[in-house]
Amino acid sequence: MNERNDRFPPQLIETDALIIGAGPVGLFQVFELGLMEIHAHVVDSLPVVGGQCAELYPDKPIYDIPAVLMCTGQQLVDALMQQIEPFGATFHLGQEVQIVEPRADGRFFVQTSKGTQFLAKTVFIAAGVGSFQPRTLKLSGIERYRDTQLFYRVRDVEPFRDKDVVVCGGGDSALDWALQLVDVAQSVILLHRREGYRAAPATVAKMHALCEEWRMQSIVGQLTGFDDEGGKLKRIKVTGGDGVTRSLDLDYLLVFYGLSPQLGPIAQWGLEIERKQLPVDTARFETSVPGIFAVGDINTYPGKKKLILSGFHEAALAAFGAAHHVFPEKKIHLQYTTTSTRLHKVLGVESPVFD
Amino acid sequence: MNERNDRFPPQLIETDALIIGAGPVGLFQVFELGLMEIHAHVVDSLPVVGGQCAELYPDKPIYDIPAVLMCTGQQLVDALMQQIEPFGATFHLGQEVQIVEPRADGRFFVQTSKGTQFLAKTVFIAAGVGSFQPRTLKLSGIERYRDTQLFYRVRDVEPFRDKDVVVCGGGDSALDWALQLVDVAQSVILLHRREGYRAAPATVAKMHALCEEWRMQSIVGQLTGFDDEGGKLKRIKVTGGDGVTRSLDLDYLLVFYGLSPQLGPIAQWGLEIERKQLPVDTARFETSVPGIFAVGDINTYPGKKKLILSGFHEAALAAFGAAHHVFPEKKIHLQYTTTSTRLHKVLGVESPVFD
Repeated sequence: MNERNDRFPPQLIETDALIIGAGPVGLFQVFELGLMEIHAHVVDSLPVVGGQCAELYPDKPIYDIPAVLMCTGQQLVDALMQQIEPFGATFHLGQEVQIVEPRADGRFFVQTSKGTQFLAKTVFIAAGVGSFQPRTLKLSGIERYRDTQLFYRVRDVEPFRDKDVVVCGGGDSALDWALQLVDVAQSVILLHRREGYRAAPATVAKMHALCEEWRMQSIVGQLTGFDDEGGKLKRIKVTGGDGVTRSLDLDYLLVFYGLSPQLGPIAQWGLEIERKQLPVDTARFETSVPGIFAVGDINTYPGKKKLILSGFHEAALAAFGAAHHVFPEKKIHLQYTTTSTRLHKVLGVESPVFD
Repeated sequence: MNERNDRFPPQLIETDALIIGAGPVGLFQVFELGLMEIHAHVVDSLPVVGGQCAELYPDKPIYDIPAVLMCTGQQLVDALMQQIEPFGATFHLGQEVQIVEPRADGRFFVQTSKGTQFLAKTVFIAAGVGSFQPRTLKLSGIERYRDTQLFYRVRDVEPFRDKDVVVCGGGDSALDWALQLVDVAQSVILLHRREGYRAAPATVAKMHALCEEWRMQSIVGQLTGFDDEGGKLKRIKVTGGDGVTRSLDLDYLLVFYGLSPQLGPIAQWGLEIERKQLPVDTARFETSVPGIFAVGDINTYPGKKKLILSGFHEAALAAFGAAHHVFPEKKIHLQYTTTSTRLHKVLGVESPVFD
């Protein structure tokens, strides 16, 4: 056997179920599939499990999980990880699913950004609100400067040394970067659409102090146009509350308008999409492509509320729906974890003797 | 003011929401309504809260409540009672709802078996599998002797003293009453459709011993007919496995075929019914009568699984549906218990300071 050939091309993982998203609903999908004796692989773009719960509110309290008086986002994730432990799901973290393609045999070819490949009988999209992407400028033509003079993300101030920089936005990211650039750039102008800033009060106070010292400027107004010279962004036009439009020469435009969730690659998989969400039926929570289910915040149906609780219910019914794909010949009966010795076996618990 | 008139007729309780059933789903309905600032009254026929969880499996483990590794039925009920504590629901236990009638003003008149009366803007039927009623004989005409010579429930052996009694059934109730009657009745015959008995082995052994002593008889066969004499049940016909039909003279026929869940009075409220269940939509979990919702095991819709988890989800969406009835002028927004200061207020918890 040739070792190289074992590794290249990458091994194709055959699985009954592939779950996209390791947030609470994706994790509970492992549980519900596990009760059906369906083993799952789970892919998430984040390097850790937990999704929004772990990323956005790990320490913040949640009160509306039934029978759980209060838990933090991280505690919820930890409890779910413990609950799904018996099912030994395989996690593939820090990689985004990029390709989902139906095959002739009814299975789906799936590939991640790290090149991991799967052949899956069923796919569960539990991707929450999708991946967070920066909100972009809505100004026709300006995107041509993206990543040369227009940036929505900054990692380092050095490229802006001794340059004229305009920073757009009123939140923490905009003000923090503006303050950091003061000692590096030739000039820093902070442009925000209104007087109030959402950034931390101490940061806002520091910005005002720097403006008073003439070390930077802040301008209130809307970005309404720009001038190009020789293919370069030469200056922008800013219309103030007074209706007057002023021109600002610049080398770089940094925009921090916050993050907005985007479907990302999911939009390319041939699924019906409605307002950035995946319409599903309420019997199986299946998308417009049979065998691909969508559970949690990413799906939509009449009455849909983006509650973790609803995602849990959806995962349960999707597991029943999937069982028909995975075991087409088998009749699926509802069994109860309280009484079913089969379920006790898959959960790895002792079957109590009932009197 | 006349004190008597204050008490008679019974006080009519006006409420935004009336919940029928204090099982886990009925209890969580209190929670979801509470988040909407809708106070609820709860009625249950049992003298305690918890429904099937508390009645049928208080000590038995449940494994499929999300984020709860394991809990017993009673622990689940206790956790839910603690969770709904901030909402101060009013419980009316040990009474069955008998009447639900729409009023001209859109509200519902509700009356229980104890005479408690309500005027409710919305009604939530969380009655589980309904009330448990004894399974009856399927033998045309025999019901005419019910409660005179034919009984499905027995409280006392005295009425059967020195009489000829036939006891039907093979479970604990049938055998326990047969054994108790041996010392009281003139004759006791236990009739069961097959050789095997579901009753406790010790009880079965005792019954066999009494038969060997000729103090009672056991017969295997089907009840296939009966003779009437002067409007009284004179004898029954029993067809054995050998195909031979024998006649048994008797004074009383006691039948213990177990309990089966019945809709009971619910069937009289003008709601659409499908196989003893209430069809609902999956956006609001509303029955065929607007303003009356059905959640948990009693409802049905495409894909329905009788999971406690599903009942919780249904209660959440039904609460949103009900909010439109209770606050017709108000726009209802989804708020999160993690971030909403309004929800923190109704939950009685401190709003954390977010950074």
